[in-house]
Amino acid sequence: MSLVKPRIPSGFPEYLPAEQIEFNRLVNIVRRVYEEYGFSPIDTPDLELSEVLLTKSGGETEQQIYRFIKGSNDLTMRFDLTVPLARYVAQHESELIFPFRRYHIGKVHRGERAQAGRFREFYQCDIDVIGSNSVAVDAEMPIVINKIFEQFDIGEFTVHINNRKILNGFFESLGLSNISKDVLRIVDKIDKISANSFTEELERLGLSADQITRLREFININGSKDVILNKLEKISLNCKSDQFKQGVKEVGLVVKTIRDFGLSDSRFMIDLRIARGLDYYTGTVYETTLNNHPEIGSICSGGRYDNLASHYTKKYLPGVGVSIGLSRLFYKLCEIGAIELTRFSSAEVVVMPIGSGQITASVRIAERLRSTGINTMLYTEENNMRKKLKYADKMGFEWVVLIGEDELLTEEVMLKNMLTGESIRIKSVELDSFLLDKIKK
Amino acid sequence: MSLVKPRIPSGFPEYLPAEQIEFNRLVNIVRRVYEEYGFSPIDTPDLELSEVLLTKSGGETEQQIYRFIKGSNDLTMRFDLTVPLARYVAQHESELIFPFRRYHIGKVHRGERAQAGRFREFYQCDIDVIGSNSVAVDAEMPIVINKIFEQFDIGEFTVHINNRKILNGFFESLGLSNISKDVLRIVDKIDKISANSFTEELERLGLSADQITRLREFININGSKDVILNKLEKISLNCKSDQFKQGVKEVGLVVKTIRDFGLSDSRFMIDLRIARGLDYYTGTVYETTLNNHPEIGSICSGGRYDNLASHYTKKYLPGVGVSIGLSRLFYKLCEIGAIELTRFSSAEVVVMPIGSGQITASVRIAERLRSTGINTMLYTEENNMRKKLKYADKMGFEWVVLIGEDELLTEEVMLKNMLTGESIRIKSVELDSFLLDKIKK
Repeated sequence: MSLVKPRIPSGFPEYLPAEQIEFNRLVNIVRRVYEEYGFSPIDTPDLELSEVLLTKSGGETEQQIYRFIKGSNDLTMRFDLTVPLARYVAQHESELIFPFRRYHIGKVHRGERAQAGRFREFYQCDIDVIGSNSVAVDAEMPIVINKIFEQFDIGEFTVHINNRKILNGFFESLGLSNISKDVLRIVDKIDKISANSFTEELERLGLSADQITRLREFININGSKDVILNKLEKISLNCKSDQFKQGVKEVGLVVKTIRDFGLSDSRFMIDLRIARGLDYYTGTVYETTLNNHPEIGSICSGGRYDNLASHYTKKYLPGVGVSIGLSRLFYKLCEIGAIELTRFSSAEVVVMPIGSGQITASVRIAERLRSTGINTMLYTEENNMRKKLKYADKMGFEWVVLIGEDELLTEEVMLKNMLTGESIRIKSVELDSFLLDKIKK
Repeated sequence: MSLVKPRIPSGFPEYLPAEQIEFNRLVNIVRRVYEEYGFSPIDTPDLELSEVLLTKSGGETEQQIYRFIKGSNDLTMRFDLTVPLARYVAQHESELIFPFRRYHIGKVHRGERAQAGRFREFYQCDIDVIGSNSVAVDAEMPIVINKIFEQFDIGEFTVHINNRKILNGFFESLGLSNISKDVLRIVDKIDKISANSFTEELERLGLSADQITRLREFININGSKDVILNKLEKISLNCKSDQFKQGVKEVGLVVKTIRDFGLSDSRFMIDLRIARGLDYYTGTVYETTLNNHPEIGSICSGGRYDNLASHYTKKYLPGVGVSIGLSRLFYKLCEIGAIELTRFSSAEVVVMPIGSGQITASVRIAERLRSTGINTMLYTEENNMRKKLKYADKMGFEWVVLIGEDELLTEEVMLKNMLTGESIRIKSVELDSFLLDKIKK
């Protein structure tokens, strides 16, 4: 029989167990924090009807999707978790209770060109609150982001906050209402293009030198939150745009409420340069960066939108949400050394009979350890001691419980510490508490 | 703008949050038990190269798969977690440590005809130990199954155990070696077809009346494990098949070791009728049934196989594993009423300011509750009290924390129990311990 070379398509991440354990640790943190804040889980099919999923999408999306015919169905794999959410909310409208707070952690698929750290299959971790107009919910998003990244323990980070009404209102005051979407898209790129390109692209849109200068000055306003809020309020006084005034009011309230949550001022900032490319944001927008690794770009973004599901229902559904692209983030965190592969097994200890005569005792001791909350692997292969210890060593176990004939006679076990090499004989009955003490630090 | 009707393809399950919370509770139990026994997580891509995934499959599989071309790739969605495991193990052979114990919880896709309780997209929860010849590992499978279903709390269940070597050895002793696969497939159907059909199908294979009688007598041997083991050993003495003798020895050892694990004899049985349709099993096989709902069929099955990845590598990889088809099981458990929808939110309590003047205090109190481990939802919509309480009621919250102007002055909160209707005023500082006591029973 000829062998088939085992391999996977490019752009699809696949981890070894040690990496998967770390990846899952991050997923669990995200899930725990989302639930702590009362977001309820949902899941949607990996495949949706193309006619339903692609109502809103333009040409670029169409090129990137995995779409095919099966039987009488034209199907597309979900390419984000937002369009399925809109469909879900509209479809189950009468069964849901609003405000609807959901989280969704799942894989999405985009057939873009694969490159380092950009995947065709990746996990997204989204929260959204649908059917809420409360600004307190806008303030909750940075709090949730903060709780997650604090527990990830990946260094200092900052949540950048802006408001689309401020930007659009300011464009309006410059007389640029009719091209505000295009101006926004250029502002969104400001950190990725040179100052010259920035000017050129705005000129190409028809902005005058004065308009460009005023825009540049505006989005470069910086300082502490209170300094910025102060400046915004001053501009507000002379600004003819009601949208601008409303945005300034909102961002002020968001800042105040974030402080009410008790978040340190060092963890978030008002950043007038944050635009977010996507069309549908209408209020607060968020981006999150690692202070020591700005090159990674935003690791958690989102914003407030006016109407989630307008393609599917006449019900007006405003909301706000953020998303973590976990596969890309994990890749980057490994790359910068912020993730250490510390565990190679779900087990914390391994129990090994020395000969087949000690399997019964080993099975029982392993079960007892599990009942005290210690994840325990049983190793019953018929190998010599050297091979057994080599296995434990390669698997990265610190503690090995060895059970031999002599030990059974004296109701003891042999404990070997693979890091120090030391061996201890210990009464079987004392094993649980000894290991609990060593492992559950 | 014309609206698109929100809907999903048939055969794709989608839950409301209350169902999803219960489904996830089961997933978490499975994951916790798998990790308790030292199985490490892996995940594989949803899409594999068709050339790699379909090496082993026959015509039936080809019809059921979701396969398509994207760019230069011929891709197929995974239809089980076993073929991807074989590919994974062969591909990462040099980086893995054997015996390799992995668990995998993930969605698979089969484009079969959708019907009630049979899905095109469903979750499987698999464990396998690859590269192990130890019979103690065979015994571990029923232990793991048992731990999971005990925690599911879905009534009494039984793990049925048999060994392919016993069946094949017995067929051999009847002179049926050359058609043992076909005989096996008919034995596998015995509970689904009539006694007449059973006889007819065997006759059609060419079995004599005497062979059929002896086969029927054999697979109907019953009684306690010790009675069956005794009978098997007696048959073994006069049986010319070494395979049979080996199977009897193995099943005896598996039963002994399961008892060593401390599992009650009522939770497992030797059942010579268990065959398992799939070709690749070669030793111990498992099926699990609910005692009060045999009509559901097996809820967890698996077995030992000789060589997992023979299509991908020359390395000999024996192993043993079991799989829970969780989506179908969940559907059936809901149907028989074994699953109750008890929670409608990930939050255990909701905090509501009565007016906008109490948002600051509410935010702080919600954060304090979270810091004590209580999942807390904050409700800050500007509604009147009636609407606020209606929301809490529909969401199924037992306790609502209301914060009003009066309460702030006296440093108190109002606690409303939605089940009894009673209202309590309580000092803010005592709220944490009061709720912890009520909620974390």
